[in-house]
Amino acid sequence: MDRTPKALWQRYQDWLYYHEGLGFYVDISRMSFEPSFVESIKPKMDRAFEDMEKLEQGAIANPDENRMVGHYWLRDPDLAPTPDLTQEISQTVDQIEAFAKKVHSGEVKPPGAPKFTDIISIGIGGSALGPQFVAEALTPKDSPLAIHFIDNIDPQGIDDIAEKLKDRLNSTIVLVISKSGGTPETRNGMLEIKQVYESNGLKFEPHAVAITMPGSKLDNIAKSDNWLAMFAMYDWVGGRTSEMSAVGQVAAALQGIDIRGIMAGAKEMDIATRVKDIHQNPSAMLALSWYYACGGKGEKDMVVLPYKDSLILLSRYLQQLLMESLGKEKDLDGKIVHQGIAVYGNKGSTDQHAYVQQLRDGVPNFFVTFIEILKDREGNSMELEPGVTSGDYLSGFLQGTRQALFENERDSITITIPEVNPKTLGALVALYDRAVGYYGSLVNINAYHQPGVEAGKKAAASILELQKKVMETLKNEGKSIDLASLAEKAGYGDSVEAVYKIIRHLEANNRGVAITGDRSKPSSLTISIK
Amino acid sequence: MDRTPKALWQRYQDWLYYHEGLGFYVDISRMSFEPSFVESIKPKMDRAFEDMEKLEQGAIANPDENRMVGHYWLRDPDLAPTPDLTQEISQTVDQIEAFAKKVHSGEVKPPGAPKFTDIISIGIGGSALGPQFVAEALTPKDSPLAIHFIDNIDPQGIDDIAEKLKDRLNSTIVLVISKSGGTPETRNGMLEIKQVYESNGLKFEPHAVAITMPGSKLDNIAKSDNWLAMFAMYDWVGGRTSEMSAVGQVAAALQGIDIRGIMAGAKEMDIATRVKDIHQNPSAMLALSWYYACGGKGEKDMVVLPYKDSLILLSRYLQQLLMESLGKEKDLDGKIVHQGIAVYGNKGSTDQHAYVQQLRDGVPNFFVTFIEILKDREGNSMELEPGVTSGDYLSGFLQGTRQALFENERDSITITIPEVNPKTLGALVALYDRAVGYYGSLVNINAYHQPGVEAGKKAAASILELQKKVMETLKNEGKSIDLASLAEKAGYGDSVEAVYKIIRHLEANNRGVAITGDRSKPSSLTISIK
Repeated sequence: MDRTPKALWQRYQDWLYYHEGLGFYVDISRMSFEPSFVESIKPKMDRAFEDMEKLEQGAIANPDENRMVGHYWLRDPDLAPTPDLTQEISQTVDQIEAFAKKVHSGEVKPPGAPKFTDIISIGIGGSALGPQFVAEALTPKDSPLAIHFIDNIDPQGIDDIAEKLKDRLNSTIVLVISKSGGTPETRNGMLEIKQVYESNGLKFEPHAVAITMPGSKLDNIAKSDNWLAMFAMYDWVGGRTSEMSAVGQVAAALQGIDIRGIMAGAKEMDIATRVKDIHQNPSAMLALSWYYACGGKGEKDMVVLPYKDSLILLSRYLQQLLMESLGKEKDLDGKIVHQGIAVYGNKGSTDQHAYVQQLRDGVPNFFVTFIEILKDREGNSMELEPGVTSGDYLSGFLQGTRQALFENERDSITITIPEVNPKTLGALVALYDRAVGYYGSLVNINAYHQPGVEAGKKAAASILELQKKVMETLKNEGKSIDLASLAEKAGYGDSVEAVYKIIRHLEANNRGVAITGDRSKPSSLTISIK
Repeated sequence: MDRTPKALWQRYQDWLYYHEGLGFYVDISRMSFEPSFVESIKPKMDRAFEDMEKLEQGAIANPDENRMVGHYWLRDPDLAPTPDLTQEISQTVDQIEAFAKKVHSGEVKPPGAPKFTDIISIGIGGSALGPQFVAEALTPKDSPLAIHFIDNIDPQGIDDIAEKLKDRLNSTIVLVISKSGGTPETRNGMLEIKQVYESNGLKFEPHAVAITMPGSKLDNIAKSDNWLAMFAMYDWVGGRTSEMSAVGQVAAALQGIDIRGIMAGAKEMDIATRVKDIHQNPSAMLALSWYYACGGKGEKDMVVLPYKDSLILLSRYLQQLLMESLGKEKDLDGKIVHQGIAVYGNKGSTDQHAYVQQLRDGVPNFFVTFIEILKDREGNSMELEPGVTSGDYLSGFLQGTRQALFENERDSITITIPEVNPKTLGALVALYDRAVGYYGSLVNINAYHQPGVEAGKKAAASILELQKKVMETLKNEGKSIDLASLAEKAGYGDSVEAVYKIIRHLEANNRGVAITGDRSKPSSLTISIK
């Protein structure tokens, strides 16, 4: 490509996308594709446009799980394929807003306090990242409730939250978020927190809100135990695109975030990204750029650099969205393809003082997406030097880094939004939702399932099974035994290493197991019941 | 390699490193190198051992900046090359501890409150990530001061911290951390916070502490303005390895973290990683594994997965340490090599619900480092099912994921530590410090400079320069003007795009500039002074 300033300025204008209603720019001029590449991808992109249209009309876009993919209907319920669905979606939002209003006014309140003051949100993956990302980006200064996340099953992490809230448990509302209602991390987190309430002499149920599919295990518990409230998730919304379902909306509404604003921004962006013309469709422009950078097969990593502290979790949100959607072994024809795009990043200009050294000089295995926010802050800025503010520095660092990278033939995309608010954030989420959908079509994969996650879960379940067997065997044995014999007797002679690790973990937690011998030589160890 | 359970268990034992004093394990058995690889790398590793020995003795290991590399002396001052240095290092630690003690007791206190309650830490890159990582991992429950970080120059981010602390500014201590004293983000953050103090009718200086090199700009300001305190950084400590200098120690000591414990752990690990035998040296084992995975040239990304919430920032810490150290254009002979290793990750099991789908099934462009923490929590755990705790689940997820990845030929390293405490954390930092040093030798690069960072800084400075020119030109012009003419008249005819972006940013912040025309066509815009 022609890298003279004049040619680059022309290329910038040729490829600039601008959405007037949202004040939203997408610039792919620094992705170094040639016109011939754009020509070559057109037929694939046309098919992607068709696929997307069918998906939005309710086709089964997730064939091996036989599911519709409907997260787009959440922001425009009139598009849902049946009037019942349209009504259900709208009603849920009304219910969430009404509930939040009552919590704020104190009409809905805990037994032991005049109002709720805090939220514990228990959920993992798609049930955590959206709410965390939105909370970080949009929580207003005068938010009526402070939110705390349990997004893992680390016992110490759970204890830390419980400790932090120990004096406010009686005014804390606990959201338990699990689509299937069976996610072990979430179920266990709920049981742990329930125990915290009970050991503090408080009832858990009047504090607890379930967000799950009607009829799930969690829904049944919430009903039979008379929880404070329950909000419905849908089968046709995947975890990683559930921010605009009850998963994201309940927490956001409670925090005083304008959830209808988020959906309005997403709806506008959805309309813009339905246009069947690469040049007029910002999601298609992203998908095209990714395809170019990655050679259609994950050859490069995507580095996401928002120049705004409040967007620090955007890269983690996109990491999940892209890597879980696109990271697939097989394409839709069953061919082994090992697809995906690795995503990482934190924020600019901070990261310029961390790893941008490698981006500029090191392995050229990435492309960057800069996120530029035009508005620096509420109110005016002091001048650090005549005519220069902190915001000018931030802006200069972004331009400078983009330029320094491009000089070294490192490509980048730049997205520019006027400010971080519910509308632009909704639009940003929708832009990427759709780009991932298009990219999935371009590389011919199912972007809506996650079969590989199961393997780890099954392996983990068999470790827990093995733990039970090992403990039984040890108790029956009654005397010291070496690891190989223990594994053999438990019926898992092939799993000596797993047995060793189970024992090592149990011992470290005073779970009635003793280890003697030289720890640098596991074979020499003997195990006994304490 | 032989992947039968029996062979793997043997391989596990053959390669297991165990440090008795620290209870620290490193397992590289699931990196699939063959014995021939180990043989082939021995000569290079022997050279790396020699390089490290010279470096520790005070050789100039950073040749183009003509600097010694001395972060190892911080944890064992007796190793410093001169008695003066030894004394200086020890005295600084004593001073820091004495200062923290006085702050805790109230002997050192702000003018308007009986004690300091909060810390604002202003610093970026190496002056932020270490303190943030340590604060997240080690802050005790009863910490005497709460810490807040300004690690960027985002005006809104600064305002958010100021807003949060508005009622406690009079009891907040402000650390300003910049080795050179000239880092613009840090200087600007300091000026912004100073203004916040003054606009609240408070004096800034009695709250301000400088952490910088003696004689730097910042040091001079601190002295002339009579700041509360000043602690010395050293020329021979790089930002990314400065956690155990005043950069990390002042904040940690104020938070009530045992800084001598951190250094003791690091010292023990330093001793262990001086052993000139791959099989007995855990840092050499890591460097060897990285070299194998990356083909000696950054072919794979390093995914870091600590299974413990409090280690969430480890991956960002290592991202900086590795990518800034190893991401280099040229080797020590001046040959263009584009080295580096990309690092990302958050925490397990959370990430299993995000991107582990791609790790298991998608692009095989990575290897994983699992960090296992044996101790689940303080106190006992409830049983979720008979004999099973949350900690067992977490442990099972780690084992299960490691196994599921290995079945699909995705390699991994596992580091196991008894618990997260000052000693193990210091050891972990030291383990990686040294592994990066060895890897730098293996690939023959200078791991201690960051020349590429300058390019972005220079480009940013020229953008700010251009902004001044553009504003002058606009003011002189007096009437509307198109972008190309404006750039031309400002003397930057080649920088129309940069001028456009500057104007767009100024307009969005009410800085006296008006834009008219069709925003989707930048060439059509006319600019005027408002």
